[in-house]
Amino acid sequence: MRDITVFSGSAHPELAAEICAHLGTPLHPVRLHRFANDCLEVQLQANCRERDVFLIQPLVPPVQEHLVELLLMIDAARGASAARTTVVMPHYAYARSDKKDAPRISIGGRLVADLLVAAGADRVLAMTLHSPQVHGFFSVPVDHLHALRELAAHFRRYDLSNTVVVSPDLGNAKEAAAFARLLGAEVAMGAKQRLSDDKVTISSVIGEVKGKDVIVLDDEIARGTTVIELLDRLREREVNSIRIACTHGLFSAGAVERLTDRDDVLEIVCTNTVPIPEPKPDAKLRVLSVAPALAEAMRRIHEGESVSALFG
Amino acid sequence: MRDITVFSGSAHPELAAEICAHLGTPLHPVRLHRFANDCLEVQLQANCRERDVFLIQPLVPPVQEHLVELLLMIDAARGASAARTTVVMPHYAYARSDKKDAPRISIGGRLVADLLVAAGADRVLAMTLHSPQVHGFFSVPVDHLHALRELAAHFRRYDLSNTVVVSPDLGNAKEAAAFARLLGAEVAMGAKQRLSDDKVTISSVIGEVKGKDVIVLDDEIARGTTVIELLDRLREREVNSIRIACTHGLFSAGAVERLTDRDDVLEIVCTNTVPIPEPKPDAKLRVLSVAPALAEAMRRIHEGESVSALFG
Amino acid sequence: MRDITVFSGSAHPELAAEICAHLGTPLHPVRLHRFANDCLEVQLQANCRERDVFLIQPLVPPVQEHLVELLLMIDAARGASAARTTVVMPHYAYARSDKKDAPRISIGGRLVADLLVAAGADRVLAMTLHSPQVHGFFSVPVDHLHALRELAAHFRRYDLSNTVVVSPDLGNAKEAAAFARLLGAEVAMGAKQRLSDDKVTISSVIGEVKGKDVIVLDDEIARGTTVIELLDRLREREVNSIRIACTHGLFSAGAVERLTDRDDVLEIVCTNTVPIPEPKPDAKLRVLSVAPALAEAMRRIHEGESVSALFG
Amino acid sequence: MRDITVFSGSAHPELAAEICAHLGTPLHPVRLHRFANDCLEVQLQANCRERDVFLIQPLVPPVQEHLVELLLMIDAARGASAARTTVVMPHYAYARSDKKDAPRISIGGRLVADLLVAAGADRVLAMTLHSPQVHGFFSVPVDHLHALRELAAHFRRYDLSNTVVVSPDLGNAKEAAAFARLLGAEVAMGAKQRLSDDKVTISSVIGEVKGKDVIVLDDEIARGTTVIELLDRLREREVNSIRIACTHGLFSAGAVERLTDRDDVLEIVCTNTVPIPEPKPDAKLRVLSVAPALAEAMRRIHEGESVSALFG
Amino acid sequence: MRDITVFSGSAHPELAAEICAHLGTPLHPVRLHRFANDCLEVQLQANCRERDVFLIQPLVPPVQEHLVELLLMIDAARGASAARTTVVMPHYAYARSDKKDAPRISIGGRLVADLLVAAGADRVLAMTLHSPQVHGFFSVPVDHLHALRELAAHFRRYDLSNTVVVSPDLGNAKEAAAFARLLGAEVAMGAKQRLSDDKVTISSVIGEVKGKDVIVLDDEIARGTTVIELLDRLREREVNSIRIACTHGLFSAGAVERLTDRDDVLEIVCTNTVPIPEPKPDAKLRVLSVAPALAEAMRRIHEGESVSALFG
Amino acid sequence: MRDITVFSGSAHPELAAEICAHLGTPLHPVRLHRFANDCLEVQLQANCRERDVFLIQPLVPPVQEHLVELLLMIDAARGASAARTTVVMPHYAYARSDKKDAPRISIGGRLVADLLVAAGADRVLAMTLHSPQVHGFFSVPVDHLHALRELAAHFRRYDLSNTVVVSPDLGNAKEAAAFARLLGAEVAMGAKQRLSDDKVTISSVIGEVKGKDVIVLDDEIARGTTVIELLDRLREREVNSIRIACTHGLFSAGAVERLTDRDDVLEIVCTNTVPIPEPKPDAKLRVLSVAPALAEAMRRIHEGESVSALFG
Repeated sequence: MRDITVFSGSAHPELAAEICAHLGTPLHPVRLHRFANDCLEVQLQANCRERDVFLIQPLVPPVQEHLVELLLMIDAARGASAARTTVVMPHYAYARSDKKDAPRISIGGRLVADLLVAAGADRVLAMTLHSPQVHGFFSVPVDHLHALRELAAHFRRYDLSNTVVVSPDLGNAKEAAAFARLLGAEVAMGAKQRLSDDKVTISSVIGEVKGKDVIVLDDEIARGTTVIELLDRLREREVNSIRIACTHGLFSAGAVERLTDRDDVLEIVCTNTVPIPEPKPDAKLRVLSVAPALAEAMRRIHEGESVSALFG
Repeated sequence: MRDITVFSGSAHPELAAEICAHLGTPLHPVRLHRFANDCLEVQLQANCRERDVFLIQPLVPPVQEHLVELLLMIDAARGASAARTTVVMPHYAYARSDKKDAPRISIGGRLVADLLVAAGADRVLAMTLHSPQVHGFFSVPVDHLHALRELAAHFRRYDLSNTVVVSPDLGNAKEAAAFARLLGAEVAMGAKQRLSDDKVTISSVIGEVKGKDVIVLDDEIARGTTVIELLDRLREREVNSIRIACTHGLFSAGAVERLTDRDDVLEIVCTNTVPIPEPKPDAKLRVLSVAPALAEAMRRIHEGESVSALFG
Repeated sequence: MRDITVFSGSAHPELAAEICAHLGTPLHPVRLHRFANDCLEVQLQANCRERDVFLIQPLVPPVQEHLVELLLMIDAARGASAARTTVVMPHYAYARSDKKDAPRISIGGRLVADLLVAAGADRVLAMTLHSPQVHGFFSVPVDHLHALRELAAHFRRYDLSNTVVVSPDLGNAKEAAAFARLLGAEVAMGAKQRLSDDKVTISSVIGEVKGKDVIVLDDEIARGTTVIELLDRLREREVNSIRIACTHGLFSAGAVERLTDRDDVLEIVCTNTVPIPEPKPDAKLRVLSVAPALAEAMRRIHEGESVSALFG
Repeated sequence: MRDITVFSGSAHPELAAEICAHLGTPLHPVRLHRFANDCLEVQLQANCRERDVFLIQPLVPPVQEHLVELLLMIDAARGASAARTTVVMPHYAYARSDKKDAPRISIGGRLVADLLVAAGADRVLAMTLHSPQVHGFFSVPVDHLHALRELAAHFRRYDLSNTVVVSPDLGNAKEAAAFARLLGAEVAMGAKQRLSDDKVTISSVIGEVKGKDVIVLDDEIARGTTVIELLDRLREREVNSIRIACTHGLFSAGAVERLTDRDDVLEIVCTNTVPIPEPKPDAKLRVLSVAPALAEAMRRIHEGESVSALFG
Repeated sequence: MRDITVFSGSAHPELAAEICAHLGTPLHPVRLHRFANDCLEVQLQANCRERDVFLIQPLVPPVQEHLVELLLMIDAARGASAARTTVVMPHYAYARSDKKDAPRISIGGRLVADLLVAAGADRVLAMTLHSPQVHGFFSVPVDHLHALRELAAHFRRYDLSNTVVVSPDLGNAKEAAAFARLLGAEVAMGAKQRLSDDKVTISSVIGEVKGKDVIVLDDEIARGTTVIELLDRLREREVNSIRIACTHGLFSAGAVERLTDRDDVLEIVCTNTVPIPEPKPDAKLRVLSVAPALAEAMRRIHEGESVSALFG
Repeated sequence: MRDITVFSGSAHPELAAEICAHLGTPLHPVRLHRFANDCLEVQLQANCRERDVFLIQPLVPPVQEHLVELLLMIDAARGASAARTTVVMPHYAYARSDKKDAPRISIGGRLVADLLVAAGADRVLAMTLHSPQVHGFFSVPVDHLHALRELAAHFRRYDLSNTVVVSPDLGNAKEAAAFARLLGAEVAMGAKQRLSDDKVTISSVIGEVKGKDVIVLDDEIARGTTVIELLDRLREREVNSIRIACTHGLFSAGAVERLTDRDDVLEIVCTNTVPIPEPKPDAKLRVLSVAPALAEAMRRIHEGESVSALFG
């Protein structure tokens, strides 16, 4: 049938290259031109006609630049007669804007989903969406992978007999419980209260943590403010050890340093859904690759095999 | 301006009448005809042209009947040149189908939202949606009221100094925490595990409950299986007292009886978003009315005032 | 190319099984789950990716249940990346709601067509629609088969030299004339007047029927009220014999008994577009199978051959 | 509120002028320019912003010219920010293409309805559509008037005690029966068979006509071939007198002359939904005006009153 | 894969036949029926199911007839389950209506693009659109060929050392400059002023023309008024010789004669995107064929090869 | 009727404030929040229900930030039940991406138009679009103002008897000719050739410029490369004086300095459609305000008066 044709935007070419290596298919370049008036133009540098086109672009900072670039890529693929355009979005940053918790605000998670479809996206491959409901924001088919399996495989090397998985937020409690079940561990969670836009406080930790080996689990760590707040609460509660796990390690504003500098943090584990600075040899940061999982999902999408069968 | 014109489907005419009494506007009848081949036809029994039409219909059992009836009402209002059609849906049953937790299943919450819009709905007024993300399933404006205020007003009559709000489910934990904050109480939650379609088990209760006055909070109680399972866990943990609160008291299959028959349950509090059998004078069941809140929201929608300002 | 993949809803699994036997393809199961709050969820039990999916579901009572189940099946197929979803609807009950003969009523035939498309249907295979204009209600391609050929084949075994085909209704007169031409017979029709929702009267029979062998033809018989009213008029006009033919034998509320109990009715002939109770060995009811016709149409749709060439 | 603003295309300015006289509102001109390459451009010659715009244009020959002109008018009104654009289409010629009676043909009635909506029509006011199902082809509200009332008022001046209404076609039988009921008359109909595209034969007349005063009723008369064929059959059956009635008197190719030249035709009655040549003083042709009915419907649409209440 | 299936409307069957000869594929007939009321019906005379359907129809006079015929053909192909419908429109007359240079006018170029898509067109193959921006009016992929290459090949037979390409209109200046670059010639242009709908004047010629061999280039010549106005200006400026080139030679109202009758015009060169009367053997008119280019583009579209690679 | 409610994005609050001063209406604030992961969220800080909402945001650098902010504002207004949302976009940067001059590139001008509509824009008010065809990219009404009137009013203070308007580009020639007509001046233009993405050359100037007072006119000046190239050509052709005029003075990368440093440039005139640095008292830069024109257009849009009547 029609061939698979993969392009990468400028957000994370290393991941795209790694995925293409797994697929055994070339990664085609995209020419990105910025005009004097700051508008962007993209040109896909390989024939798209009747091809099964995949566009790889996680929405990482600068998010607005990467989003518009992605929309232009989708439009270019449609105009170039792609048979099908699949957006591979290992990190969908706007998924966190998933509800209307104040009047007259935008619901960015739904809006951006609609924009992708308006531009011509036929399907989406996403990873660890902030909430499972975000799936329903899309009017096109979504394949939604989780990195919990990759993370769990990493932690199984340790003695987990005294372990509790702690979610920094009640909203992520179900995910933490699922991860705990994978590891045969207990679960606990922080009760977060937002004092202002930039300031949250964790007033209490619900569940037993004293003397435990804690794995803090979140879907995404950016500035790390919430996690650090949680670490303070855990220290007060005299936990035995702390490791941190997340799928999307955005680590803005020196977050890695602030976390690794703490003596009570043994390890930080994330994946390469977003670009991560190469860690120092002796650093506490471990980066797991999701390229094999994404490549396998893309192969199955292309060949019409069940994706859920594999990653269910 | 154009007048407000209210119709009620057959799902909950008592609530519609109560709302109209608060609004001081007549409730117009809808003729529902069932043909010999079981198809439905509706006729709105008042002029809709250029009117601000409100259609009141919670999705209660038989849900499919009420849903198709509602879709036909919306279609009839559109064909009859309504200026605007607002669906007042105090209970959106399909909101619970909000994610794809198994391959090849429908996401009913999004599908039904799309069907309502395809039929011609211009906006929706909903109450206590199962998850806040469901708001984003709609491509038309949604006003989303919560009944937590009504429920909190009821419980403030009691001494709440030793109270903990318990959610039977981690997925509802944030809602329980918000309710606890309203009452100045603690929060705890059950960790539910689904063994099969009809069988859930609550393996643990996270947070302190021993010796406490417990308020169990859920958004909806149907068969009550989960709540009863939680009650057993709470009894084992020697709580002091138990009251139960929910917005949508569906109470199918003798659930009220099964709950009120338990000695350790002092009270069950729900609202009339769905039709509730008139409780016996001495019964433990208290039904709070959401008609004033819905009527006020409808008045504000009609007059272009802020709804969030009131119920935020 | 991509494989044909057939699922059946719960409305008429026997017909689906018979169709699949003719096609030589397995009938894949659909898991239908009803939640405690009466909402439905469907799961298609076989991989749909890039498959040519056919969903078999006539809209028979309980119509609303079967309609929502069908919409959920279509949504699930779309979400599961079916290459094409064809709805096989041997009986489209809402086709009778095809005009606006009163103010402010729904036109269910058009609305349901739009709902099917909104849910994701790519094409429709229908049989003996109530009026040929219903074809135009769909914005997707429709293949419209007629069962007149099957019915005519059955009646050719009789001596038809003194036969007249009688339509109970002027609205079906063209269909009756076409059937009469197939049989080389005359045509006549009743002039129906609707007194109330449930009461019709046939004031006159237009055309010659005295002393004739009558075949009463209708597209659908539910309660049979109209046909029985016609039988009374025919008896008054001293016809020689009476046989009854229809495509969709819904036969609600003891209609079969009321018709077969009449001495002047020699035979009732219908098809299995809808589930028919197994007739008693000596009964007057004959059920013809449309499974071969539907299977052949599905095969042609799948392989891109002309359907009209066969059934035109 | 916003004003009513009426424009007429070039198809039937006399009717538009008469309607505006009844409404007491000016008829605004439309500049129609034909470029050298035969393309059309229209300019609406009055401000449309926030106005309630009505565009009057029956689809009469040259139909394609008038259709494209109408689509351009709708587009211009949309681009000029009309608050609402209502298409007043006293004759919808494409309504006769309402079914798919041969493979791979267009269904013009549905297609043109979609084109009108794609161009920006918000609602439609139509008269005596060929079949009532055509109403359902539109995805916007349609007000559908019938001229039967006007026609019946005309015929009530005669002695109708021995009258039968005859439809030339089984497809129009229901309409004829309704007209007969209005006049207290009998009904009969011709059974038409199409021999080729241009040749039809009426093989039989079903119902009693001998010695009767016949009113032949059709929705539209163009070349009149079918009616003349029917007149021959009626003469053979020795009717007493013949009058002809129709809503849309297209009368192409000398049809009026061929009909009025027959001695057995006493009168031909039609309406001015389409332009009719001024009849000679002594002619048998009577033209009834639908302008009062259309003007009243437009007034009611503008003011949000029920249209069905008047013309139901 | 699925076969290519080509139909031609009635606008330019000779070009369609020539294209099919180049493709080595049969040209399938279309039955066009005109009803007595002037409505059109088309029937595609070959199976379309799952075929790659191409419909060839330039929009030439009578434009409205050819446009509606084309829309009906697209609708018929969609209803007949074509896998993909490509409109081959060698001349898109409405492309000249590409801006809103007066209030309340239609933008025909965008409207007709929307109508084609509403009728079911999946892609468009066009030639020498009036302005390149018209490409963006379509929401489906467009392949846009230019005939400049064919025209340039023709003129290269002459000595071009003293040549200037003159555009009659500033709006076409960029195209003229591109053509001049292809020929290694200079460029100049007329400054047109529209005095009234039918009257333009060219007030000045910008650039050097005196003593030059002029090639007048326009995209389309209909009545030729502008070109003749330009010829007068050129004569005043004492040019050496004049040749005229255009892609679309509509030549209405004796335009060919008026141009060839002038002594100073040596040659008129156009292409067969529109039907051209067979020129007399000694005539100054040369007609170049675009059939090879269109056929090659269609082949590439069908086989998923890059079209731009060839004609870029 | 419903009130006008104006919000400004962060792109150009000074212009918004000036517009609101002219309108005599408050400028409501917009809260723009940037999350740690770089996503934006906007909250409109005043009630929008049933209001006539105007959102002011030119697309100036950083363009992608301002575009996504604008899309979120539109989405928020829609979700907050605005009666109508008008986007006031004094500078539509993406309008320059209006054609497909290379294979597989995006047409940003059309894509962004579609995104604005997908987000919920009901109409657009734009100024001096790069080409008039861009108007047709929008499927909603556009009011398109030109700043030529403001620019012409400024230049009429000078002696224009020896003046020629020069366009740096053939694509802008028509605009330059229109401006020349307003001033009673001649017109000339540069023939630009693009050597590479960043390098253009003006090979020739077409038309008479020697000894003339030149006004260089462009729609937008960003880096000014093209204009400076033109200035060199003009100097070679010994013009008498040079002034520069443009609507959108983006002036990136020191363009103002590079232009004003040239002795042969007497003056640079632009408007405040985009933010312009306050010029020094003795500088050659003059900034004309478009706020009165935009305010008047907004008032007319709100009150349903003709905009074209004023600015046509």
